Amino acid sequence: MPTHLTTSQSDFEQRFAEVLSMKREDAADVNDAVASIIADVRERGDEALVDLTGRFDRLTLDADGLAFSSEEIAEHVAKVSAEDRAALTMAANRIRAYHARQMPDDVQWTDPEGATLGWRWTPVSAAGLYVPGGQASYPSSVLMNAIPARVAGVERLVICVPTPDGVVNPLVLLAAELAGVDEIYRIGGAQAVAAMAYGTETIRPVDKITGPGNAYVAAAKRQVFGRVGIDMIAGPSEVLIIAEGEQNPEWLALDLLAQAEHDADAQSILITPDAALAEAVVAEVERLLPTLPRAAVAGASWRDYGTVIVTRDLDEAAALSDRVAPEHLELCVDEPEALAEKTRHAGAIFLGGWTPEAVGDYVSGPNHVLPTARSARFSSGLSALDFLKRTTLARLTPEALGAIGPSAVRLAASEGLSAHGLSVASRLRSLNGEKE
Amino acid sequence: MPTHLTTSQSDFEQRFAEVLSMKREDAADVNDAVASIIADVRERGDEALVDLTGRFDRLTLDADGLAFSSEEIAEHVAKVSAEDRAALTMAANRIRAYHARQMPDDVQWTDPEGATLGWRWTPVSAAGLYVPGGQASYPSSVLMNAIPARVAGVERLVICVPTPDGVVNPLVLLAAELAGVDEIYRIGGAQAVAAMAYGTETIRPVDKITGPGNAYVAAAKRQVFGRVGIDMIAGPSEVLIIAEGEQNPEWLALDLLAQAEHDADAQSILITPDAALAEAVVAEVERLLPTLPRAAVAGASWRDYGTVIVTRDLDEAAALSDRVAPEHLELCVDEPEALAEKTRHAGAIFLGGWTPEAVGDYVSGPNHVLPTARSARFSSGLSALDFLKRTTLARLTPEALGAIGPSAVRLAASEGLSAHGLSVASRLRSLNGEKE
Repeated sequence: MPTHLTTSQSDFEQRFAEVLSMKREDAADVNDAVASIIADVRERGDEALVDLTGRFDRLTLDADGLAFSSEEIAEHVAKVSAEDRAALTMAANRIRAYHARQMPDDVQWTDPEGATLGWRWTPVSAAGLYVPGGQASYPSSVLMNAIPARVAGVERLVICVPTPDGVVNPLVLLAAELAGVDEIYRIGGAQAVAAMAYGTETIRPVDKITGPGNAYVAAAKRQVFGRVGIDMIAGPSEVLIIAEGEQNPEWLALDLLAQAEHDADAQSILITPDAALAEAVVAEVERLLPTLPRAAVAGASWRDYGTVIVTRDLDEAAALSDRVAPEHLELCVDEPEALAEKTRHAGAIFLGGWTPEAVGDYVSGPNHVLPTARSARFSSGLSALDFLKRTTLARLTPEALGAIGPSAVRLAASEGLSAHGLSVASRLRSLNGEKE
Repeated sequence: MPTHLTTSQSDFEQRFAEVLSMKREDAADVNDAVASIIADVRERGDEALVDLTGRFDRLTLDADGLAFSSEEIAEHVAKVSAEDRAALTMAANRIRAYHARQMPDDVQWTDPEGATLGWRWTPVSAAGLYVPGGQASYPSSVLMNAIPARVAGVERLVICVPTPDGVVNPLVLLAAELAGVDEIYRIGGAQAVAAMAYGTETIRPVDKITGPGNAYVAAAKRQVFGRVGIDMIAGPSEVLIIAEGEQNPEWLALDLLAQAEHDADAQSILITPDAALAEAVVAEVERLLPTLPRAAVAGASWRDYGTVIVTRDLDEAAALSDRVAPEHLELCVDEPEALAEKTRHAGAIFLGGWTPEAVGDYVSGPNHVLPTARSARFSSGLSALDFLKRTTLARLTPEALGAIGPSAVRLAASEGLSAHGLSVASRLRSLNGEKE
């Protein structure tokens, strides 16, 4: 049974705190196993990749077979139906258009003291994208990770995707092609992350690694962080829907179930001031749940983590949502923009009943890689900015140094850093000498 | 002796690779000790803070004494000289002006299909800044961390600064005041990080923790990451200077020494096509080094990690710099803007001989918290953006869902996520029904 709360009940605060602190993930401690795999790849390179792929993916390769050839890619991609290709192409185009708007401008100005200041953005040189194999091998995730990198101007874009028992998802290869990926390797797990971070004979190292994966992949990303940049470590997914009035209970139920079917650890929350709507939605969930192919997964998620909260009004709903800081926030209300203004913390907001979260997973344009587990309080979804870095720029004229340099000398003295002070003072002496 | 290389020598590539892979930091493994401290603070709250502060900082407090009162702050701040106050105020104003320019705009547009898309930026609600105690207690770091948070609109700004044996740096408190910090606690180490991440009876938790610290602080930040956001874990500092022609060898030597005096693990690199200049700078370093109060530290850094490289030309120097991806890059050349265009990877660039790196540490305006250890390949210095997060927005009209929804249904089917597809299809049925 999902959790049912009403904000007017006397123990609401305590029970809501329990919802907030639900631990939905028991991360297995695989750190030692992952450290051994990384050390092996660093030491033996391609040979380690071949051995580990044989062991974990039951796939016999030699080093020449690590990469998909362009002929192999073409052969797999040819199997994709025209309808799937059209849908994936529309998604790629919309995602590209959205992320292109994220590209920031370089900025430069000269201040009254004569200091020319600013910054510029440059792309990372090479990025690697991890794509899970098997059932979690989602072509949409390839687009969501690879397109922002390409939009940012990353020169070299690499994918690692395991092919257990040799099974390849042609849509993943098509997504890679549509996104403009340069190299695709049929390796997975911690060994793939190690290869992208440190390089092997066949795979040159990258500067940034993104993409979802299992506990081994997540642990490997944590361990190589610093050597390369990584994206956030994603936790189980969640949706929070605020609904009122005349919303269609079937639509809301399906939106809750769409989240729940991802993973037994996923969480679906409905908040509404309308107790009758809450009841109707729960009834629809119960009616629809058994009809789903993934009923076992969705049912476990709904039973263990599903939550329905009846509030006094929409303002109270917005305040509760901010305490959850959900990955996905659906505002199925008459004036969604006004309600959005009353919230601060969410990865993505879906405004109005005609914007189901599922269109955001595929085709609306914004990224579907979003902060989970309340981290929308302090972080953002994946964007072109994640594949760019900013270099600050400063140029002083002699006069500008004359104006602001003495303060630097003073502060260096207060921090006991004499060479800092001397490096400025030596120039100030020349400046004053020149003036004489 | 620093390392001397010439790009024309036959073993240059090998020797340069050695410079790139120099391990400058032996991070002590304090993970277990830190995990115990964090667990203690989570369990016992203020009581643990009082005990640990007594043990590590030899300071007897009760819970009421954890925070500096406004009277205490005023009393300490009154000790600051007018000159120091003026210098710190100039620094604060310039840092504020620079970071205010970083504030990004919210963006929204409607595409041809009728989807209104965009994103908005909101600040994190509360940020915590760690400030080291003792000799590394730098008021400039307080400004560099706190001002971007305030500029971003963070509502609640907290500082933790240990005061070993009760010693307080009045300039740190003044910097906090100038930056607009709300709460200051006299606690340090892993216990301060734990208190800010999880909260105690006295200290409410924050959403993001930034600031430098020792191995315990760094390990604690890694361990609480996910619960809160953190900034990068900083490694030892480095400068790379590209110089030519008529540059003043004393200035360059002092810039190299200013980096070296930070830490025996700091690294100073000079790259120049002018062998005579290289020699002159090395001679100046040797002349000036013994005169520095921090000669022992600077001397160890210069001996172990100092590097001088003579290149064929400036283009070659720029290419080598990109392989280092230095935290600080000084371009002491006649046309620094043109040379900057030839580099891609640096935390901050200082253009021309009148822009010593030390002015950037204090008063030029850009942030001095910058990516170290080659991480400028994929990351940026601290900025107002680090205290903001982006929420993506989407609103579809029924017609827009009609146009793009079918592709989402198709892709959901290809990924085996039927409730995703149904959540869109159910709406499409209503839409088509309405049209009939």
